[in-house]
Amino acid sequence: MQATPQSLERKSPLHDFLAPNSIAIVGASSDPTKRGYKAMVGLIKDGFKGAIYPINPKADMILGARAYPSLEAIPYGVDLALICTPANTVPGLIELCGKKGIKGAVILASGFKEIGGEGVKLEQQVLDAARAGNVRIIGPNTSGMFNLHQKVNLLALANVKPGNIGFISQSGNMLLSLVLEAEHNGHVGFSTYVGPGNQTDIGFNDYLRYLGEEPNTKVATLYVEGFRDGQRFLNVAREVTARKPVVVYKSGSTEQGKKAASSHTGALAGSYGMTVDLLRQVGVSVVQDSDEILPVAEGLGLMQFARGKRIAVISDGGGQATIASDRLSEAGLEIPELSAATQAKLREVLFPQASVVNPVDVAGSTDANPALLADCMAIAAGDPNIDAVFLVGMFGGYSIRFAEDLLGGEMRGAEAMIELAKHTEKPLVVYSLYAPVKPPALRRLHEEGVPVYPSIEHAVRALAALGERGIYLAGLDAQATGPAIEEDAEMQAMFGRAQNEGRDLFEYEAKSLLRTHGVDVAPEAIVSNPAELGEVAARMGDRPLVMKVVSKDILHKSDAGGVKLNLQGEAALREAFDQIMTSCRAYDPNADIRGVLVTPMARKGTEIIIGVVRDPIFGPVLMFGLGGIFVEILEDVAFRSIPVSREDARSMIDQIKGRKILEGVRGEPPVDKEALVDLLLKVSGIVSAYPQLSELDLNPVIAYPDGYAVVDARIITNRSVASN
Amino acid sequence: MQATPQSLERKSPLHDFLAPNSIAIVGASSDPTKRGYKAMVGLIKDGFKGAIYPINPKADMILGARAYPSLEAIPYGVDLALICTPANTVPGLIELCGKKGIKGAVILASGFKEIGGEGVKLEQQVLDAARAGNVRIIGPNTSGMFNLHQKVNLLALANVKPGNIGFISQSGNMLLSLVLEAEHNGHVGFSTYVGPGNQTDIGFNDYLRYLGEEPNTKVATLYVEGFRDGQRFLNVAREVTARKPVVVYKSGSTEQGKKAASSHTGALAGSYGMTVDLLRQVGVSVVQDSDEILPVAEGLGLMQFARGKRIAVISDGGGQATIASDRLSEAGLEIPELSAATQAKLREVLFPQASVVNPVDVAGSTDANPALLADCMAIAAGDPNIDAVFLVGMFGGYSIRFAEDLLGGEMRGAEAMIELAKHTEKPLVVYSLYAPVKPPALRRLHEEGVPVYPSIEHAVRALAALGERGIYLAGLDAQATGPAIEEDAEMQAMFGRAQNEGRDLFEYEAKSLLRTHGVDVAPEAIVSNPAELGEVAARMGDRPLVMKVVSKDILHKSDAGGVKLNLQGEAALREAFDQIMTSCRAYDPNADIRGVLVTPMARKGTEIIIGVVRDPIFGPVLMFGLGGIFVEILEDVAFRSIPVSREDARSMIDQIKGRKILEGVRGEPPVDKEALVDLLLKVSGIVSAYPQLSELDLNPVIAYPDGYAVVDARIITNRSVASN
Repeated sequence: MQATPQSLERKSPLHDFLAPNSIAIVGASSDPTKRGYKAMVGLIKDGFKGAIYPINPKADMILGARAYPSLEAIPYGVDLALICTPANTVPGLIELCGKKGIKGAVILASGFKEIGGEGVKLEQQVLDAARAGNVRIIGPNTSGMFNLHQKVNLLALANVKPGNIGFISQSGNMLLSLVLEAEHNGHVGFSTYVGPGNQTDIGFNDYLRYLGEEPNTKVATLYVEGFRDGQRFLNVAREVTARKPVVVYKSGSTEQGKKAASSHTGALAGSYGMTVDLLRQVGVSVVQDSDEILPVAEGLGLMQFARGKRIAVISDGGGQATIASDRLSEAGLEIPELSAATQAKLREVLFPQASVVNPVDVAGSTDANPALLADCMAIAAGDPNIDAVFLVGMFGGYSIRFAEDLLGGEMRGAEAMIELAKHTEKPLVVYSLYAPVKPPALRRLHEEGVPVYPSIEHAVRALAALGERGIYLAGLDAQATGPAIEEDAEMQAMFGRAQNEGRDLFEYEAKSLLRTHGVDVAPEAIVSNPAELGEVAARMGDRPLVMKVVSKDILHKSDAGGVKLNLQGEAALREAFDQIMTSCRAYDPNADIRGVLVTPMARKGTEIIIGVVRDPIFGPVLMFGLGGIFVEILEDVAFRSIPVSREDARSMIDQIKGRKILEGVRGEPPVDKEALVDLLLKVSGIVSAYPQLSELDLNPVIAYPDGYAVVDARIITNRSVASN
Repeated sequence: MQATPQSLERKSPLHDFLAPNSIAIVGASSDPTKRGYKAMVGLIKDGFKGAIYPINPKADMILGARAYPSLEAIPYGVDLALICTPANTVPGLIELCGKKGIKGAVILASGFKEIGGEGVKLEQQVLDAARAGNVRIIGPNTSGMFNLHQKVNLLALANVKPGNIGFISQSGNMLLSLVLEAEHNGHVGFSTYVGPGNQTDIGFNDYLRYLGEEPNTKVATLYVEGFRDGQRFLNVAREVTARKPVVVYKSGSTEQGKKAASSHTGALAGSYGMTVDLLRQVGVSVVQDSDEILPVAEGLGLMQFARGKRIAVISDGGGQATIASDRLSEAGLEIPELSAATQAKLREVLFPQASVVNPVDVAGSTDANPALLADCMAIAAGDPNIDAVFLVGMFGGYSIRFAEDLLGGEMRGAEAMIELAKHTEKPLVVYSLYAPVKPPALRRLHEEGVPVYPSIEHAVRALAALGERGIYLAGLDAQATGPAIEEDAEMQAMFGRAQNEGRDLFEYEAKSLLRTHGVDVAPEAIVSNPAELGEVAARMGDRPLVMKVVSKDILHKSDAGGVKLNLQGEAALREAFDQIMTSCRAYDPNADIRGVLVTPMARKGTEIIIGVVRDPIFGPVLMFGLGGIFVEILEDVAFRSIPVSREDARSMIDQIKGRKILEGVRGEPPVDKEALVDLLLKVSGIVSAYPQLSELDLNPVIAYPDGYAVVDARIITNRSVASN
């Protein structure tokens, strides 16, 4: 069992009212159908120890508590106001909260931003009143909140147990679903829940910080339909995941980004895949199926992390071991051969026909002595090649299926597993096909925090999340971003000129920016007068050259006849120059043609694409992929939030499906991955240094066994950010 | 609700003993730990109406039934023998079964083929005795069988309900897992279960045929670790799926095919992906996660099929509608806009703020009247653009969450849904977050066979299986395979020569086989004497030509310098001829060089690969994929069992991820898909006509907007099949 995670320093202002000692209920009621009644019942039934102040001008007492006609009439201090009255009453009430010094208000009413028109205005009034009075707002249009350790259950949910899962959900039904699932399996509990509603004031990043600091929360779990300030969320998540697991389910996985994009990167950015990449970059455990939210949160909450992804499977036979192996492999987990010493120890306790390699199949050895499974788990946990132990089969059901007198052995086995869990850092995870029956041995494991799953698939998702988190944590030291790049005055001036002219950078300008900051860019010459071509030919040597038109008005150079390849010698350059000028003038007689760019042809190699966009939600984002069909057809790309660390850059390259091509196929040598990592770090640094850069496309970059060549570079300027 | 599926004609011999009227239990016992005791208790407790004959030489009575010292001593006829005694007793017992005229025996003992050595011999003795005595064998090494409608429960499983799911499982634990899951959800039942064990005699295909014919089984469900005779299984499955759904979970999805393969097709064949493709080709519903077996079987058992994949989602708000949309889209299902008439009808019954497009969000309209959800479902079911209706949300939980007096409305809603299900052909599927609580309205739906799932993901898998099955059934009429190809005497002779010489076909031979049977192959000339090159140059015209060495000893022609491209005119041909001869003789001085092949260079187009292997389990299999990285890196290929239908051929092309390339990218025109379909049908026909053909690789075929070109053809001969 792992040490309790350290809490973050208490920086969030939400503690003041998410763990309140006194609550005013505006719109409290004796009518059992009203929310103002249910909230009071919830508080009273759950045994809230603090003060409850019902506000209702028409009542003296509500449910045994003295009622007040208004917030002002309460003679004591109040931590939190629950506002159950209609939308139009809310701005005035928030003003009163401010006067009364109430730090936080939960606004249930709908009829704000989500209905448009007047609702938008009303929501702004609420926010203005909140800012003026220094009141923080949950909602409006929220399902409410609970803090079960404080016995504050404003949703009046029955049968929900206090526990270690903190949950923030944009869907109240999703909370309900998890609560019912937890009630049903009987062993999962929650700490704090908040429905962020319209997120007028408090957003996901604030709630996440709160959960990160909240000591009863061992895992922060979020159901997100959309982020408001994704970039800030990533920053908070990075801090929180260093201390405790964060689980996110992001809905809208098949949402189609329908915007017209000016680049490949632009077309692929903003996708669900990008969001997942960015969340994983900061250590978030992203869950893809809603069924897996609770099982993954449960496993991470109990066990925090595994050192890695190497799993020992202990099974009592049957198809489940095969299924487990399939699912583990699909999830990227490993089932390594156990060490010779481990195998020898297993041989000592198991029948000769047992398989002790991994998965371990006890082959009947435990039929008369199920406690032996715990011994096998202990032996496997002692293997240095193993990061977690997964028991698969019918433990807990021996006494049901075989003979009642096996119950004693099962209970001894459960106790031994509990002891083992206390003394090993390695997570123990149990799948039992008897889990739905809740037999005594499994109930015992649950009581002591050893997770038992009724689904192999869910158990594997939990193991994968534990392993991914461990690997993320181990890499944190190496997570420092590359050395910062200092902006260059000449480059600033170049951006300024382009911005003044209302244009993007010319290719040669983009390349000079890259070259200035250490990117390997081939020499090039800008020629406006064909008389210079002799000198250029001499300077470039006898390499084959390429010539491209330079004009802000010609975006599709090839279509305009503005590109000539494979040129050698002055004569060829002169002829190409004339042809380009003729073609391009014919293509667009009004084009402002500044000349041509001459540069050596790139050798053949593997085409990759590197791109940058400034995403409206997540800020600057770096994209990496293989060129051609990999980007265009398969959308096989990786995204990271800028700035990226060396580790991030490496993981981008390893993430794409086409990585095998980079590793060398058909006997070809692998490309120089470290050179690509350097290139990604430099691009990240450049983007951080130049806010004037809006989008960047290096397409293609040709990767070689030794280095790379940036063949084309396009940089779109941010017209609204002036250069200094 | 759909009509009960027709039963197949009763052809299976398994009926005689899988629905027995009299059972002998060899090794019956009064010792409660013995299987021979448990089986008797199971029969007695479940109320088996037939005769039970315990066989035990040491007892007169067992559990109230008269015991006999041996099978021969029973004075009556016996349908089935359950053999609980050790392995070495079995051959003798099977002989006795034969003498007694017992048609079937269930052999529980292990210690046969699976332990190797003596066990293999013993198993052969069992099989010999069975064949000699006309006894059919279940097992050995089986977990047993049950037929719950016949009250035959030889596994003595408690709490398993009779129902419509037939199950054959190579893992007894998987049966146990499904039974516990069914017990837990309380509404799923089983018809017949058999553990095939070592499949010495009866294999999966026999069991599947039996389940196909068995009238209580509405869905045949199989857990398969490996097929013995896959080709026969496919044939039986094709027959059965035409009448009732067949669900297969195949374990070993990540198994690595480690064989050394002589072709791309060979390297990719035998994979899990191939098995899935072939099963789907014959209408099997393949389930990928073991958790999904029971939900999918339940849905298919109750509703058989949907006309298609167009789903109306009715939701009472919250994130679940979004999750459902994500999962539906990911599963390839559609959520089309509802018709104007449907939208108008929904508007009439719902609040103005409801969304009636699809997903339908009732937006509070049903809060006080949950029965309205049934009306919405009925309206949606009436839409001709809709194939199935999916209710998503908290139905069943209104009375729990909001107010108890909503129970009446929920019950009325449930009755209305039940009525609707009886009168519409379109499946109704319900997801409720209250399903785990089993509230009365949901229990009512279960009772009347409307499926209610506690998981959106599982509900979606069931909807997908229903839609896929409906589309398969609709396409059955078009499933006729292409016209058969008659073998050609000259081609037979060509195969004979190659086989006599112990070699595969030369490229020009392979191409002539294709050409003979109507495949579009470019003209070519085989030249052994350079003097002929003048005539060849004249005949081929002024197209650029390619020249390739012809030698059975040179497999890698390019490496040997045996290929010259882009040749024009006699002089170029002569020079190329000399260079090829020189290079190839240097490469392998002992090579038997027959000359060169001259053929026009193919125009540029899209490279595809078509391959054939004769799989040891599944027989002849056709493969289709895009060339290059799609095959080599992404393994993006489709497989079908030969012979293929036109529909099969089309679906292969549509299945691969790279299909977008065939449909035309970057403004290029689409390739001529119908020409590729014809090519696939012709290859299928050729493979059926020539058993001498062992493997085939057309790699590449270049696909054009008009037709295709077979650039290289390789045919490996089957040395063991002599030509006639």
